[in-house]
Amino acid sequence: MSSIWGRNIRISLFGESHGAGIGVVLDGFPSGLVLDMDRIAAEMARRRPGTGKHATARVEADQVEILSGVHNGKTTGTPLCGIIRNTDTKSVDYAELQVLPRPGHADYTGQVRYHGNNDPRGGGHFSGRLTAPIVFAGEICRQFLETRGISIGSHIQSIRDIYDCPFDPCRVGEAELDLLRTMPVPVNDRSCAQEMLDAVEEARLGMNSLGGIVETAVAGLLPGLGSPMFRNVEARLSSMLFSIPAVKGVEFGDGFALAAMTGLEANDAFFMENGHVSTKTNHNGGITNGMPVIFRVVIKPTASIYLEQDTVNLETGTDAKLSIKGRHDPCIAFRAVPVLDAATAIVIADLLLDSNQEPEAIDS
Amino acid sequence: MSSIWGRNIRISLFGESHGAGIGVVLDGFPSGLVLDMDRIAAEMARRRPGTGKHATARVEADQVEILSGVHNGKTTGTPLCGIIRNTDTKSVDYAELQVLPRPGHADYTGQVRYHGNNDPRGGGHFSGRLTAPIVFAGEICRQFLETRGISIGSHIQSIRDIYDCPFDPCRVGEAELDLLRTMPVPVNDRSCAQEMLDAVEEARLGMNSLGGIVETAVAGLLPGLGSPMFRNVEARLSSMLFSIPAVKGVEFGDGFALAAMTGLEANDAFFMENGHVSTKTNHNGGITNGMPVIFRVVIKPTASIYLEQDTVNLETGTDAKLSIKGRHDPCIAFRAVPVLDAATAIVIADLLLDSNQEPEAIDS
Amino acid sequence: MSSIWGRNIRISLFGESHGAGIGVVLDGFPSGLVLDMDRIAAEMARRRPGTGKHATARVEADQVEILSGVHNGKTTGTPLCGIIRNTDTKSVDYAELQVLPRPGHADYTGQVRYHGNNDPRGGGHFSGRLTAPIVFAGEICRQFLETRGISIGSHIQSIRDIYDCPFDPCRVGEAELDLLRTMPVPVNDRSCAQEMLDAVEEARLGMNSLGGIVETAVAGLLPGLGSPMFRNVEARLSSMLFSIPAVKGVEFGDGFALAAMTGLEANDAFFMENGHVSTKTNHNGGITNGMPVIFRVVIKPTASIYLEQDTVNLETGTDAKLSIKGRHDPCIAFRAVPVLDAATAIVIADLLLDSNQEPEAIDS
Amino acid sequence: MSSIWGRNIRISLFGESHGAGIGVVLDGFPSGLVLDMDRIAAEMARRRPGTGKHATARVEADQVEILSGVHNGKTTGTPLCGIIRNTDTKSVDYAELQVLPRPGHADYTGQVRYHGNNDPRGGGHFSGRLTAPIVFAGEICRQFLETRGISIGSHIQSIRDIYDCPFDPCRVGEAELDLLRTMPVPVNDRSCAQEMLDAVEEARLGMNSLGGIVETAVAGLLPGLGSPMFRNVEARLSSMLFSIPAVKGVEFGDGFALAAMTGLEANDAFFMENGHVSTKTNHNGGITNGMPVIFRVVIKPTASIYLEQDTVNLETGTDAKLSIKGRHDPCIAFRAVPVLDAATAIVIADLLLDSNQEPEAIDS
Repeated sequence: MSSIWGRNIRISLFGESHGAGIGVVLDGFPSGLVLDMDRIAAEMARRRPGTGKHATARVEADQVEILSGVHNGKTTGTPLCGIIRNTDTKSVDYAELQVLPRPGHADYTGQVRYHGNNDPRGGGHFSGRLTAPIVFAGEICRQFLETRGISIGSHIQSIRDIYDCPFDPCRVGEAELDLLRTMPVPVNDRSCAQEMLDAVEEARLGMNSLGGIVETAVAGLLPGLGSPMFRNVEARLSSMLFSIPAVKGVEFGDGFALAAMTGLEANDAFFMENGHVSTKTNHNGGITNGMPVIFRVVIKPTASIYLEQDTVNLETGTDAKLSIKGRHDPCIAFRAVPVLDAATAIVIADLLLDSNQEPEAIDS
Repeated sequence: MSSIWGRNIRISLFGESHGAGIGVVLDGFPSGLVLDMDRIAAEMARRRPGTGKHATARVEADQVEILSGVHNGKTTGTPLCGIIRNTDTKSVDYAELQVLPRPGHADYTGQVRYHGNNDPRGGGHFSGRLTAPIVFAGEICRQFLETRGISIGSHIQSIRDIYDCPFDPCRVGEAELDLLRTMPVPVNDRSCAQEMLDAVEEARLGMNSLGGIVETAVAGLLPGLGSPMFRNVEARLSSMLFSIPAVKGVEFGDGFALAAMTGLEANDAFFMENGHVSTKTNHNGGITNGMPVIFRVVIKPTASIYLEQDTVNLETGTDAKLSIKGRHDPCIAFRAVPVLDAATAIVIADLLLDSNQEPEAIDS
Repeated sequence: MSSIWGRNIRISLFGESHGAGIGVVLDGFPSGLVLDMDRIAAEMARRRPGTGKHATARVEADQVEILSGVHNGKTTGTPLCGIIRNTDTKSVDYAELQVLPRPGHADYTGQVRYHGNNDPRGGGHFSGRLTAPIVFAGEICRQFLETRGISIGSHIQSIRDIYDCPFDPCRVGEAELDLLRTMPVPVNDRSCAQEMLDAVEEARLGMNSLGGIVETAVAGLLPGLGSPMFRNVEARLSSMLFSIPAVKGVEFGDGFALAAMTGLEANDAFFMENGHVSTKTNHNGGITNGMPVIFRVVIKPTASIYLEQDTVNLETGTDAKLSIKGRHDPCIAFRAVPVLDAATAIVIADLLLDSNQEPEAIDS
Repeated sequence: MSSIWGRNIRISLFGESHGAGIGVVLDGFPSGLVLDMDRIAAEMARRRPGTGKHATARVEADQVEILSGVHNGKTTGTPLCGIIRNTDTKSVDYAELQVLPRPGHADYTGQVRYHGNNDPRGGGHFSGRLTAPIVFAGEICRQFLETRGISIGSHIQSIRDIYDCPFDPCRVGEAELDLLRTMPVPVNDRSCAQEMLDAVEEARLGMNSLGGIVETAVAGLLPGLGSPMFRNVEARLSSMLFSIPAVKGVEFGDGFALAAMTGLEANDAFFMENGHVSTKTNHNGGITNGMPVIFRVVIKPTASIYLEQDTVNLETGTDAKLSIKGRHDPCIAFRAVPVLDAATAIVIADLLLDSNQEPEAIDS
């Protein structure tokens, strides 16, 4: 069950980086959604390694073939399977990694976990390539959420020491979030985009890499989404977000900054706004009181760097040196944005379908 | 399924803060563990509101009655149910909260979620009191983990601007972690304990509250624990940790600090140490390569403060003022420590029982 | 997860026959149902060993204490826990069973399964006593189903060679099903009740036991309940029904008799009736096309009989003789009726809450 | 989650009868199994509509392409996805079925369930064609079970009034079960095979159809498999078996015949045999005391028959007549045999991987 997630909508991911193909089954997805295939392709393109200098040179068409679950352009309600062929696989690049595991990768862990039977090529099932079917599944979920008035979007909060302005946690909405989806470097303050790209280029020239922080917002939620204790919005989101390779931290609302605040500062006071209960601040972004859910995720620096690194030789049991070849992004935070949007959409859609959410449950 | 968690060991939590009782069922717990009831009582006492100035004045014996699953002092392998009676409930304290929801609490959300049918007294099932059965279940899991050589412990990393020294991420071990369990204010550098208490006392006198950061370590793991994609150690831990009230952020290894590091700095280089694969650093603490798993959790300031706050009157739909009465900790980070230890133990025990972990899986 | 069942409503059963108590947690039950405690008590009484000659002499009050999940007489939506104390336990009766396992019981299997750590007294968690919390949980679910116009009831189809008339599979409805609930020996043709009791009395005098077949009907369902492939009504019902001790067969509609029929005989032809799609026959009772769901369950003869039987001595590894003492029903088919009603209610309620059942799912 | 089944090994089925393809993901399958692709092909061929007179004329190559989870001929431990293209789809055959639902099929139910959005061609996801990926997944599980000494096999117990001899419930073993796998009409008494074929041919000529009963045995199990209450072998098997289209009844051991037996007759007395605990009879075949698990399944007559039948016109809401065209087996009991073998293998493999099965669980 390790690569299956969800309760109402279950996604079942499969595939290895350099195998025949990768894909996903969406089980339990509602029937009747007219799929916008162009927007699915657009999201796949956002995640795909590009031609820009900050992206890997690997080129994959990432064309999704839908095998089931769609009839006459609409979802049928029965399992929807999408597959993506792996077309640009050069396994020769990865031959030595079974012996010399890459620091920061799952090469060593994966071999131990699967007794050496796992597919070592390109990280196998541990590969970041598995985020492609997440984007596919997530965009379908997002199109469903749109029919319910819910928007999702993300911006790059920081790369190294370059910071974008954060979302306005009480006011962020659909127009702003949709706009981010169209930007090559999605930021709120456009002036920082070039600085970020420059920092990444500098790392690339130094055969090194950078990480970053991405901030995501969900707007348009009705109050009361999620359930105590283990099915609250924060718990469900984090269980999905930490499944994305390179994510090492997740914080909601003011997150870790809350540690230095007082209760008076941290509490979000209620007030009435146009006849609805609202809050003046949104320091606790994960409570679904109808305010936007805001969270930040840290993406660690790309583990694959060209500088020589220390490792071990698993055959000889001795220390060794490793120089990684192949094609690698010097910063994957950019490509993480559509993945985080997609992952968020899957979680929110799954929660939204909880039957108990229905207001008319019982009248006895 | 909202209050059920786990796959091999499933815990099913129940109860409301001011109802007849609270408790937990452990389903799937292995048979044959001799329970140390004294240590269970000791952990319950660590979580229980104390007599210290930094603790709430509510007094609960928190005596757990085991209804099933234990025979002749040993676990039977069939469901283990423990219940705790609520003895010190003054519901009169909470009467007005259905009309005037407390900022930072689930009073408003809970009413919307359950159409006004939820038990509003003391937060009902949303109450921090539900962490008592987590401590009970977690300590049982920890005693199981001990038979496998695994240790868990936590220290207060910070309260406001007062910082303890962090764990040595490569060297932290059983003796150090067990010692923390015996300290009223569990810190690595004992000199900061009084400072922390003073800061909390200052907040209490100001009718305000404080939060904090807790750092937890798991030592003694074998490499290869957890599975891609959604059953990795970080995803499973976070799904449990964010279910604990007041937790607003979780980070593994260097966490958010990784955003300002380069790949070379962030990667944990391998080396051979006494014939085993080890790493020189542990910036990514959540990968189970045999190194300790280290993570930090932020606990927001207690939402219940005595200062007057803005809220709304849900009956009249107008703005209102609220002064919270009752008994409340000015800082719950201290009491969160045994809860985080327990929650961690539940997650690690559940992962440890994954059948595929067994090394002799197939020989064909 | 072995004693947890369900998806929307999850029941978590716990307890051993001769431990402190038994019980159940209902997680995910909708909020707002006014519980009729008298009818819960009435169903508990139906299952309880009676004073009649065909029932065991064990006397248990079977008073359920509700610990959580009910406030002001209504369900809160958060976990509902009910516990039943074991009051009439004479463990001395069962001392030798760990050495001399009873044929037809789980004494031997249970010891192997739990490495001798299971509670052997009275079958422990394997005991038929665990059907008491099923009746409690099921009656709550049935009261919920009633608010949706759904009725459930059962009659004794046969005891040895004495047969009651079957339900009219197309016409069975609420009045008939509710009436069965009030009868000491629930049968459609009242003339067979005494004959059945006489057969059981004869078996009792012969220190032997009898089994029987129970037929259950669910009326008032709307078409379209359940989902392909594994969440269809038959699969979900059978997974619950085979969890009831002594059930060894389940058949829907004409069941095994279909093997000797032709397609023309077996197919249920559609026709319009009062503007609704209906069928002229109901040979396939498990398809939720809006017709009643009909199924039969075989209850094997009580395994505990007073005649001497062959067994083995697990200590010495030699053949042995066993005479079972204690109090045992000569036929448990009668007491199985409320258990089957309850089990059915749990399954149907769980399926009914599937979110995709909602007709207004998407309009895009 | 409707088309996902399992706990340790999870299978996720997808596809529609006349869509692009069908398939299955096996999640959690152990690593290191060398797949015998020839035997997978042989089992697929057993299920495939043949050229015999008792089989449908539809011809599908049913070539499975493995997209993931196998590397160097061995399972990797990560999700294994196999897909089968639909090549012989003549949707024109099914055009009118949306308006005139076939009796005994899910045409009407499916439309209600999915608000008319389901794929109506050939039953869509409700089609018997979805048993092809079950055979694929099941044969992989069976090859795993073989490494543990477990055998599975089935014979046709009856077609109409023609009966094969049943298995010897205490003695059935590997050689006998493997032999059945090689027979076009798998029966214990070969003399009845032609009689069965003749009966089916007679039905075919009459444009009608027949059902049958299949008996399945699992040999080589160790005692102690399965758990109380809901994870016992019978409950898990039945939940899978009733998911196979046309199955309307399941009984274990003597099944429904137990209703006419006494306790003395029904109990399986223990005795020592070659140093192991054994039983003299096996009337309760579903208890895993180390004896074979025996069960029977009834397959209803093929619903698609050529005789004119009554139905309704869903557009006009009036009664109507229907003559089904296309290609249909006059008896699917034969082709059900490999499906039942496969389904059984999936269930037993899933249970076998329960972590608590490990004997060395705790030593404290």
